[in-house]
Amino acid sequence: MRLEETLARIVPPDPEAADAARARHAELTKPPGSLGRLESLGVQLASIRGTPRPRFERRVVVVAAASHGVAREETVSAYPGAVTAQMVANFLGGGAAINALAAVAGAELRLVDAGVDPEPPDDPRLLKARIAGGSRNLLREPALPDGHEVRILESGAALVEDLDRDGAWLLGLGEMGIGNTTSSAAIVAAATGVDAARVTGPGTGVDGERLLRKRAIVSEAVARWSPRGDDGRALLRTLGGYEIGFLAGCCLEAAARKVPVVLDGYVTAAAAIVACALAPATRGYLIASHLSREPGHAVALDHLGLAPLLDLELRLGEGSGAALVLPLVDAAARTLDEMATFAQAGVAERDA
Amino acid sequence: MRLEETLARIVPPDPEAADAARARHAELTKPPGSLGRLESLGVQLASIRGTPRPRFERRVVVVAAASHGVAREETVSAYPGAVTAQMVANFLGGGAAINALAAVAGAELRLVDAGVDPEPPDDPRLLKARIAGGSRNLLREPALPDGHEVRILESGAALVEDLDRDGAWLLGLGEMGIGNTTSSAAIVAAATGVDAARVTGPGTGVDGERLLRKRAIVSEAVARWSPRGDDGRALLRTLGGYEIGFLAGCCLEAAARKVPVVLDGYVTAAAAIVACALAPATRGYLIASHLSREPGHAVALDHLGLAPLLDLELRLGEGSGAALVLPLVDAAARTLDEMATFAQAGVAERDA
Repeated sequence: MRLEETLARIVPPDPEAADAARARHAELTKPPGSLGRLESLGVQLASIRGTPRPRFERRVVVVAAASHGVAREETVSAYPGAVTAQMVANFLGGGAAINALAAVAGAELRLVDAGVDPEPPDDPRLLKARIAGGSRNLLREPALPDGHEVRILESGAALVEDLDRDGAWLLGLGEMGIGNTTSSAAIVAAATGVDAARVTGPGTGVDGERLLRKRAIVSEAVARWSPRGDDGRALLRTLGGYEIGFLAGCCLEAAARKVPVVLDGYVTAAAAIVACALAPATRGYLIASHLSREPGHAVALDHLGLAPLLDLELRLGEGSGAALVLPLVDAAARTLDEMATFAQAGVAERDA
Repeated sequence: MRLEETLARIVPPDPEAADAARARHAELTKPPGSLGRLESLGVQLASIRGTPRPRFERRVVVVAAASHGVAREETVSAYPGAVTAQMVANFLGGGAAINALAAVAGAELRLVDAGVDPEPPDDPRLLKARIAGGSRNLLREPALPDGHEVRILESGAALVEDLDRDGAWLLGLGEMGIGNTTSSAAIVAAATGVDAARVTGPGTGVDGERLLRKRAIVSEAVARWSPRGDDGRALLRTLGGYEIGFLAGCCLEAAARKVPVVLDGYVTAAAAIVACALAPATRGYLIASHLSREPGHAVALDHLGLAPLLDLELRLGEGSGAALVLPLVDAAARTLDEMATFAQAGVAERDA
């Protein structure tokens, strides 16, 4: 799957299907608008799938992991960089939050080594998409070597191609990578023009002097590489990470195939910003699951034009918020598809 | 099941299990607190079940329906009173929002005729708990005849007794009854002392002059019967409805059996206020699923000391918000129970 081919296939969701879904919602047995944001979400799903009665047969959460050179700057995380690989082992062992949350959501969990250091042992449940053992230190060098940004985007697109059969599934995104809120903050600052201090937060839990230093690193990196906000390849190459590129590639191929994409927190929002810089029409395929406690997340979602469905003060990543929201997204589709109309059910309509 | 016996068995949730759950959360493989409100919800579930690792095997949504005499005041609803019985038929036919939402939530749906007019035909899927064909017009008479308030509370308690085997299930509550936001507003105004105008909203969608008249009805009824805010029987008898009483009885028996109760919108909050007036310790067993668009709902939840999990601008009732939240409640329990500790998973802990 060549990146240019994926990009060329992305068109905005279908406005006629959206109108038809709005008309159907007005006829279903409930006061008009009484399902609130479930109704607008249903309309979005209808426009994505090109039908007023969308159905989804499967739910998948893709969790991509990668190591970050910037994690060698000890201030950026409350945990050592080695935790990235340890958490991949924990995902495989079934002991992480996302294991429980994907099970509750009835979602298949696809784990991806997008560049973890040290390299995880071979395991049939772990997709090896690595082209390096993690990113370089974005404070010192561009995060990815030239060309790697395209290769990792194509790798994410290839997984979605592999997962797709008929488009009738929901894709949730998640990530693991010590240091990746630093990379995400740099992407968000560069893409939005918002000051680094406002979009750099505690991540796994740094505060005080360490948080000030983390902000300075983001600010320095953005100033040094100063990629254009609408240049997705440059954002990813200079300030990104391999899991961010992989997930951006997932967004693009999902949009090309008319598959709804449920984002998680800050890092997946940064991946979506990269994707939308490469193909702005991708935006219509995205759903924001929740508003994380990471302060830059609201800035990133605002830039993407997305309103989060939940606000549960989550700040874990791993796809945790995406998994929580998958049943809710399905509920938006199923009410639209399965409910009876006033005429079908013999229920009296509004008297005024 | 006599009401007094149910009330005597209700004790607050176990604070020691809550402490043990907090300690366990600090050891699980995630930054401390990073699951946000899922963690506090997990702690509540632990305290309800008396164990730091609560598990739930089943999810049930009880939807109680009843007619309201006040619906004869044509201003209170955008729909005729006959819609209550028509919607019960729609629930049985599988065409209502709650049918789709309960299916997505993997929840068993229990439908209850708590006093619907005209009486629905016999159906094995509809529990006949009716002791009258709906309430009287609370503007003219006390809503329930003397003694009916106890009988309908006991009827709700009996259903929960019937559903319960080992306590390891989640109970969601829902309702249907044209006119019941008028009754709920009156209960909330009387229980909280907040002005009727602030807690009386559009319900199914009244506005303008009709909304002003609805507010006047609530205000008049509260002034006429002026039940004490801590007298659950008087609140229910003078201002309530049969489905509200039935659901209040469900709350009480669930609390007595240490079963978590997931509330829906405004009407279930009014039922919870009745239950908590009868047995204040019931409060610890309640979970607020969402904040509805009905303006009095925030007042009611504040009175109950509950913070809603979702804010999706729902205003349907039927248990719609409760059903949406059931998987999320289960997620709070399963992360607490199933996640590995740092020691078990061999993941490094915080370095600072």
